[in-house]
Parts: sequence; structure tokens; C-alpha cells
Amino acid sequence: MLDFQAILNAIYNKGIAAKNKGTVATYIPELAEVDINNFGIHLRTAQGEEFGVGDDNKLFSIQSISKVLALSKAMALIGEDIWKRVDVEPSGDPFNHLSQLELENGIPRNPLINSGAIVISDILISNLKNPKEDFLSYIRDLAGDESIQYNLDVANSEKATGFKNYAAAYLLKSFKNLQNPVEEVLDFYFHQCAIEMTCSQLTKTFFFLSNQGKCILNKVHLRKSQAKRINAIMLTCGFYDEAGEFAFEVGLPGKSGVGGGIVALLPDQFVITCWSPGLNAKGNSKLGMLALEEFTTQTKLSIF
Amino acid sequence: MLDFQAILNAIYNKGIAAKNKGTVATYIPELAEVDINNFGIHLRTAQGEEFGVGDDNKLFSIQSISKVLALSKAMALIGEDIWKRVDVEPSGDPFNHLSQLELENGIPRNPLINSGAIVISDILISNLKNPKEDFLSYIRDLAGDESIQYNLDVANSEKATGFKNYAAAYLLKSFKNLQNPVEEVLDFYFHQCAIEMTCSQLTKTFFFLSNQGKCILNKVHLRKSQAKRINAIMLTCGFYDEAGEFAFEVGLPGKSGVGGGIVALLPDQFVITCWSPGLNAKGNSKLGMLALEEFTTQTKLSIF
Amino acid sequence: MLDFQAILNAIYNKGIAAKNKGTVATYIPELAEVDINNFGIHLRTAQGEEFGVGDDNKLFSIQSISKVLALSKAMALIGEDIWKRVDVEPSGDPFNHLSQLELENGIPRNPLINSGAIVISDILISNLKNPKEDFLSYIRDLAGDESIQYNLDVANSEKATGFKNYAAAYLLKSFKNLQNPVEEVLDFYFHQCAIEMTCSQLTKTFFFLSNQGKCILNKVHLRKSQAKRINAIMLTCGFYDEAGEFAFEVGLPGKSGVGGGIVALLPDQFVITCWSPGLNAKGNSKLGMLALEEFTTQTKLSIF
Amino acid sequence: MLDFQAILNAIYNKGIAAKNKGTVATYIPELAEVDINNFGIHLRTAQGEEFGVGDDNKLFSIQSISKVLALSKAMALIGEDIWKRVDVEPSGDPFNHLSQLELENGIPRNPLINSGAIVISDILISNLKNPKEDFLSYIRDLAGDESIQYNLDVANSEKATGFKNYAAAYLLKSFKNLQNPVEEVLDFYFHQCAIEMTCSQLTKTFFFLSNQGKCILNKVHLRKSQAKRINAIMLTCGFYDEAGEFAFEVGLPGKSGVGGGIVALLPDQFVITCWSPGLNAKGNSKLGMLALEEFTTQTKLSIF
Repeated sequence: MLDFQAILNAIYNKGIAAKNKGTVATYIPELAEVDINNFGIHLRTAQGEEFGVGDDNKLFSIQSISKVLALSKAMALIGEDIWKRVDVEPSGDPFNHLSQLELENGIPRNPLINSGAIVISDILISNLKNPKEDFLSYIRDLAGDESIQYNLDVANSEKATGFKNYAAAYLLKSFKNLQNPVEEVLDFYFHQCAIEMTCSQLTKTFFFLSNQGKCILNKVHLRKSQAKRINAIMLTCGFYDEAGEFAFEVGLPGKSGVGGGIVALLPDQFVITCWSPGLNAKGNSKLGMLALEEFTTQTKLSIF
Repeated sequence: MLDFQAILNAIYNKGIAAKNKGTVATYIPELAEVDINNFGIHLRTAQGEEFGVGDDNKLFSIQSISKVLALSKAMALIGEDIWKRVDVEPSGDPFNHLSQLELENGIPRNPLINSGAIVISDILISNLKNPKEDFLSYIRDLAGDESIQYNLDVANSEKATGFKNYAAAYLLKSFKNLQNPVEEVLDFYFHQCAIEMTCSQLTKTFFFLSNQGKCILNKVHLRKSQAKRINAIMLTCGFYDEAGEFAFEVGLPGKSGVGGGIVALLPDQFVITCWSPGLNAKGNSKLGMLALEEFTTQTKLSIF
Repeated sequence: MLDFQAILNAIYNKGIAAKNKGTVATYIPELAEVDINNFGIHLRTAQGEEFGVGDDNKLFSIQSISKVLALSKAMALIGEDIWKRVDVEPSGDPFNHLSQLELENGIPRNPLINSGAIVISDILISNLKNPKEDFLSYIRDLAGDESIQYNLDVANSEKATGFKNYAAAYLLKSFKNLQNPVEEVLDFYFHQCAIEMTCSQLTKTFFFLSNQGKCILNKVHLRKSQAKRINAIMLTCGFYDEAGEFAFEVGLPGKSGVGGGIVALLPDQFVITCWSPGLNAKGNSKLGMLALEEFTTQTKLSIF
Repeated sequence: MLDFQAILNAIYNKGIAAKNKGTVATYIPELAEVDINNFGIHLRTAQGEEFGVGDDNKLFSIQSISKVLALSKAMALIGEDIWKRVDVEPSGDPFNHLSQLELENGIPRNPLINSGAIVISDILISNLKNPKEDFLSYIRDLAGDESIQYNLDVANSEKATGFKNYAAAYLLKSFKNLQNPVEEVLDFYFHQCAIEMTCSQLTKTFFFLSNQGKCILNKVHLRKSQAKRINAIMLTCGFYDEAGEFAFEVGLPGKSGVGGGIVALLPDQFVITCWSPGLNAKGNSKLGMLALEEFTTQTKLSIF
């Protein structure tokens, strides 16, 4: 039987000793100021056992990882109608994100790139009474943890500098793929990105996707087939330009964020969250990627 | 010697009898409501003789034709520094306008496409005390006509529907090629597009570009070399995706607008303005293009 | 326990009754002449049980399915060095296949698109004594079946009409990503596409990828980690522009060909091959796609 | 009155003293070996006066300048039918030349980029008895000089290394925009590029385009309107990615070649040829571009 704690410890020790820990994102001060030496890993098995190491109880900005949660909420609310407005294909290069959106007439490639997540935010606004409050409640329910919060400083900084997201939102609007006002949609979108969690909280939150739609409190949040589909989308689209590489090297559905977090899971087996703020050239956590490669190499646990 | 009046009359009669007059722009009500049967032509020679036919004294929305005037004002204000922020190459397809801007790192291809004109608007705001008032004064000076106005309904409609321009402006901002706030820059930009003139006024206004920089009142607005350069830009970039076609079929520097106006000129010889609101598939006035082809074919007056 | 034979029979009956069976590929006569009513399915479990229905013993042109076999041979020969010349990311739109190759400096997105497979062919030529003979032997070994052949008429037709593949090969050559002469590389590539197999043979051939690298005769052809990686590539890149859709709807690694074949597999569980020559709008077998969706929906067997 | 000889002498002296003379093309040995210090200028007025300086009687490879002559021959042969197969719009970036051709369904942007010139070669082959002989005769007729030749070493070197041209030709073939075999078309195309002339010969050859279609021997080779159209195409498309810049800085129709030659002309006034093998970053002769800027600045002779 696998000794998960020993495996995580070994991975942590190897990671923390690495000379090159990548580069912390600097486009907003709240991310730029995070200490690059942070490194945490947290694992939860299908049986509910938990294992952690390092900074797995420190809060960090989950950033794009929130896109998976927004998608799952939208799927719960309107089901297959989502796919009239967003596709499910991998997107390739992030550097020409707007070009692709323009060439494809305002239909984002998938819900895990910025333009797709902006459309999902628009869907949530049209279907929730109090979008920001209701979405936060949803996350808290998934995690079984009422302490989870938006970091308002982060939300405001994103809003003040997120010009490319404004460009994407207006382009969507020009193609009539945004029903609510751009300012309102982006305010909600930037708040989602600004949710803070620990590795431990994030692992609990994502448990439902490894558990056929049922959260840690055993409440059904998605149908089994819906959870499977979100996993398929994470596998093909969860890592920007490195989605193929992640499937190739790690072989798990997962999602990364520019705050340095990565969540990955093996259906019916486990959820694992890594966090280290230094990013590699493709914008994914450097130590996080290495940790997950190491983890699946050592445990032989992957979907392939 | 050429009998310009007879030539214009013949062109007018042929045009007004055409069955297919193109399609009026419909994205804002102010343009959609214009009668497609309007057709006017006005010519002014270097010697100051004027010839007109049809609706050459009706006001219309000059739209993108204003981009040439904004460029000439910016050139007068800051000279060669413009070219640090905008290129002078033809742009090709307008359908992927944002793609090109993104691939080329926020440097617009030329000042006569929307993104380029938005940068020029930003330059003018940074260099004029009261941008809207000062720019209108500039136009009135060029035309020698104090009656020229912004149409505020048009400006407001453009603002309410111009999402793709917002997308372009935010994309420019994301590449740090916009110094003033997007809202302020676009408000000014949409006002420029909303200037109304008649064929007769527009011909007078553009006279300085055919006259080595000196306007009809003989005041110097540009150096000779600057006027030449604007003419070169009009020739290579003045007709969206039809710039090559226009050079090929007409052979004059010129600029069209979605309101159905076209101004063209032969240096040291004449300025001609056509207006008919029906557009061809490339977004240029259908009768206007035919009129100019006919005019240069009959008179043999072109730069080639 | 699942009654695979009953499930396959039901899927076959539903498929054969479908009014719209897609459109047969017409670019070469050998494909155009295939009867659209052909429909076969063949399944083999990890335990070696086999189930078949319909035309699962008729030969068809495996076309792009051969790309997976060429990749596995190249991986066996030179291992990780492949990835210096081909990437592993999904490619998106096939309509601008050459554009992407040009923008990305001659490095194909992955080995399962044409340009990538052409590079793999080049690698095989450089590493095999008699490329065509050796590759056919490899396939025969995998399938345990000496009767498998190239269809030379198909190979010749491909060669006579495959201008876009010539364009891709010369573009690769211009980027120095082809070591052997274009004619020689494409001759080999077109032969690979022209291999003929039945559903039953193809299922046996692909068994090694579901079996940690060991073929039906228990011979090791790839290391376990290599087989996993090919599965990861099939999942993210195996279905042209429909890779995300296939992962989303079916959830199995697989590969389709323009001859109407599709192979898919669940590691350690089964391999399934469908064949029906009518294609959907994205170029994948229409009945084949529906059959696999139905199969994973009914059996709940997928990687997610 | 202008003293052309003095002006040319001054420009020559300034150019030859320049420290940075650009970079000689190195993709074939025949070009790589040319001495970078070569610099010649030759001018011929409408009245037949000729002025020369420097190496204006040394042979060089005219390369892409031949595209204008192939176009004029095709226009003489089939007239407006050319435009069913090639467009007349500027092309922008050469770096994604194939991408554009693919996105625009095999219709080259204009006849002065490689793909367009390949289509023109195809047209000539279909309309000439002995394409290579007949085309050389045509050039000799234009120049009034029987000594003009193909350089067969250059033609062979181009053929052995021109992979991107093969890619373009096969892409054209895949879009059915090439009627003759690729090998035959490119053999002819590479021969055209391999014509050698002196500045003096090239000036004479191009005289007909400045002279309403009549060559130096007063023979009509094109109708006046056809000569005008070729001039329009040269202005908008003659300098790759620097067409707008050339129109802006020089203001003359012209064409450059990678051998370092540039021809430019002012209708009814003069033809001027410069040659210096060092190229600037955009692939146009560095001294040649500077010489023409200087010439039009000093003489005030431009079309604008």
C-alpha cells in the first residue's frame, strides 16, 4: 500500500531545495509580494483520509482555478445550454487569445480560458439573485467551510489592470455573446479570481468532482455525468498552452491558477492540491507541476 | 480642355439610374434612416473653381473620413513622434482587425484603421487643451466654415454600440499604447466620427492636402512634405480591404467613410468628394466608387 | 456484469437504422466508392474476450489511425528525442493547419496531425533499414496477423492528390525539420495511410496500448510509461477539431481516420474499433462517434 | 533645372561612405558571394537622357523585380482574366505568407509576392509556346538588348533551396489555382528570378511602364491603362512589408529584389534603378532605399 505522507514529504523536500522556483506573477502588487518559498501540498483520498505537507494551510489567491467552480455552478443551473455559448475544445496559444475569439465569431474555445469564463460569469449573473454572495455560498458549501472569502484588494487590483479582459468582454459583447453590462460581468469575474483558499480547503472544495458530483458532506451538486464532463474539460483545457504537456507528463484532470495553485484529481481515488507561487514560462506553478509529475510517477496513479 | 460640369452630370445621371445602389449601414439608427437615393459629387480645382451635382449640399456623417483630419492635426502637433505608436503599412482584412493588433503587440498598422485612429485620438487628447472644441475649430478653419458641427445623436449611438472599438481601445491599453482613460479617448473618437459635412464642405476641408499644406484661406496647416505623406497613407490605407483595388481602379489618394462619403484628390490639381449612403461588400460607397472610377477614366487624371 | 455482445448489437441496430449516416470522403476514388451502409464494431477485453457485430471483418483504409502506430514505432526507436521535433499540444482547427505550422516555425503541434506525422515518417526513415517493409512487419507483429497489407491503389491516389501534404512537407523542409527528401518521406507517409485492416485486426493491433505496452502475444513493444503517454496524446489530439468534444462526450483515448474508422481504449480494460465510412462535418465517422458515445454512456466505462 | 548627374553623384558618394551597408542575402552561394561595396544608380528621363554613377554597368540578379515583367507579359496575353486568380491588395507580413494564402483559399494577395508570381508563371506557361525562351525574348525586346541572360547557376541554386516556394506552389495546387505541374511552374519561376541585368539595362527595360506602355524602341507592349495599373500595384505591393513605408518616404511606384536591386519610376518623367547588395531588416536594399529617399527629397519628384 502507498504511504502517501512519505511520498508528499519527499516531494516537498525535493521541491523546497530547488534552486529555480520560477517567477512570481507581478501584474498586481498582491501577487507580486507573495514569498516565492511558499510550497504546500494537500491530498484527500476517496475514503476521506487527508495528508498535507509544507504551507498547505496558508491562504493564496486561487485565480483561474475558480473557473472550474463557476463552470460547475453554471452547469448545475442551466445544464447543456452552456454549450450554445462556449465550446469545449482546447485553445492552444494564450498569446493570441483575442485573435482566436475574433476569428471564431465570439464563441470562446472553452470555459477555462478567460473569455470563456467571462461568458460563464455572464450566465451566472443572469441566473443568480445575488451573484457574488450566492457564488461564495456555493464555494463554502462545497468546502464545508464558512470562512472562505473574496480578497477585495486583489479584486480591485485586477479590475484596475485587467485591460485585456475588458478587451475580451467588449469583443464578446460585439458578437452579442454577453447579456449583462461589461462592467458588471467583469466585477463578478474579478471577484471570482480573488477568492482565497488554502491547499487544504481547495482539496475539500474539489472533492465533489472526484466523487461523482457529491461533496464532502455527501450533498449532490452535479450529476455523475456532469462531473465526468468537467473532468474531461480540465484534462483537455486546464493548463493553457501546457494542457497537452500536463496530460502527457501527469495524466490527471486539473486546473492551475496564476497565483501558483494547481488542483488535480483521479476520479474515485483522490484530489491533490499544490501551491507554490513561482510560475514556469507557460504560467503554471513550477514546483506544482514538478510535484504532480513526481506524484503520478511514484504512485502510478493516473487516468491512462 | 475638360468640361468638369458635364462630366460630373453624366456620372451623376448614370449613378442615380443604377438599380443596385448597395446597402445602407444599419448598426446605428442615424445611419440606417438615410435615404439610399442620395447622391452628390463636388469638385474643386487647384485654381479654386468649383463644380457640383446632385445632393452635394446635404449634410452627411463623415465617419472615418475624419481619421485623415485627426492624423493631420496630430502631425501638426507632434510630427514624426506619431510613428513611435502607429505604423504606416496597409492593414488588409478588417475582419480580423483585433487579431492583427494583438499579434503586432498593440501597434496599429496605420492611422486610418480604427485602432490607429484611437491612438491618434489619445495623442490629440494629450496635446490639446479642449480636445473636442479644439478639433472642431481646426476643421472649421480648414473649411473656412463656422457652421460645421458634431451630430450628438450619432456620437451617442456610436458610443452605445461601438463594442468592438472598446475592445480595441482596451487592447491598446493592455499594450500601454493608450495614455488617457479609454472612456475619454473613445468619447472623443466617436465625436470625430460624428462630424457632419456636405460634399462641398468636405471638398474645401481637404483642399490643403492637395495644396501642399495650405488651406483655401491660404493658411499653412502642414509642411509640404507632411501633406505628401498623408496622401501616401491615404493611397495605401484609405479604403480598408479595398485599398489596392482603389489604387488600381482609380489611382488617387482618398478616404472613405461608412456614412457613404469618399474624398479623393490629385496633388496640385483637384479635390473631389462623392456621397451616396449605399455601401458595397467592402464597406465603401457603391456609387461613390463607381463615380471615381468613371471620373479618372474619363479625365485621365490620376497619379499613375 | 456487462453483456457486451448485447450492447454492441443494440448500438449496431440503432446505427444502421439512422437516416443520416454522414458523407463518404470523396477526394480519392478508392474512398469515394465505399458503400456508406458499412458499419462494424469490434471489442476486445483485457482478458482476451472478443465481441463483434456487423461488418467488423471487412477491410477498410485505416488512414490517420496509422499515425498512432507510426508514433509508437518512433517512440520505441528513439524515445524522448521525438519531442525535439514535434510538440504534444492539441492543434485546434485543421483548416489553418499550415498557418499554425508556419507561425510555430515548423514544429508541428503534435504527432497526430498530418505535419506531425510527416515528421514522424522522416524519423522512421532515418532509423529503419527498409521503412515500408519494416513498418508493415511491425503492424503485423502487433496484430499477430501476417495478412495485413498496404493498398497500393490507395497509396498512389493519395500521392497524386495530396498537394496539401506536399505543401506541409516542403514547409517543414524549409524550417529544416525534415532530413530526408520530401518525395521519399511522403511516399512512406502515404503508404502508412493506405494500410487496410478490419475492425477485428485493428482492435488486436491497438491492444498493446491498453495493455501497458504488451501486444496480444505478450511481447513488450513499449514501456508502460510510453504507452500511457501515447494514450494521453490520443485523448488530447486524436480527433482533429473534435478532440475536446470526444473527451467530453466519450471520455476515452482514441484515434479516427478519414476512411471512417475509430479506435478507442480504456487502459487495462478494453479496446474497441468502430467503422462506418460516412463522416460528420469535422471529418470523423458519424456512426462511429455515436456508437462510442452510446457505448460509454451505457457501460459507464470511461477514464473520467 | 535639375542637374541629375550632380544629384546622383552626391547620393553615390554619401552611400558608398556609409558604415552600415546592410546584409547580403546568404541563402544561395551566388548571392552570398557578391561584394557588399557594389553600388550603382542609373536614371533615364522621358526625353531619353541617361545618367549613371558607380557600378551601374555591372550585372546583378534581378530576383523579384522580374515579377513585374512577368505580370506585364501576362497582362498583355490574357488581360483582366488574371484577376480571377490573383488579387491586387497589399499583403503585409511576409513571415506568414503561407498562412495568408491558406486563409484566403489559395488566392494570392497580389502578383508581386511569391505565391502570386507563381500563379503568374503558371498563366505564362499556359499561354506561351516556349515559356523560358519567349519570356527572355520579351525582356530583351523591352530593353532593346539581346545580351540579357538567365544565370543558370542561380536558377539551380534557387531550385535546390526554395522549399518555401515549393510549399506555396503545392498549396496553390491544393486550391486548384495551378494548372501546370509544380515542378514545371517552379522551374520557370526560378529562371525568371535568375535573370541578370545591369542598372542601365533594367532602367531601359522598365521604361515602358513610365511611358504609357511604349518601350524605348517605341513599340507598344501594354495599353496605357494597363501600364497605369501595374504602377498602382507596384506602389501598394512592391516592397513586401515596407510598401507603406516606401510610399510614405519615397512616393514612387517601384519594385525591389533580394539581389539588392530597386527600380522606381515617375510616370511620364523618369525611371531610376539602384543596386547595392546589402539588405535592410525588411529585405530591401539598404543603400537603394536611402538613395531613393534622398533622390525624391532633393528633386521633389514624386507622385504625391
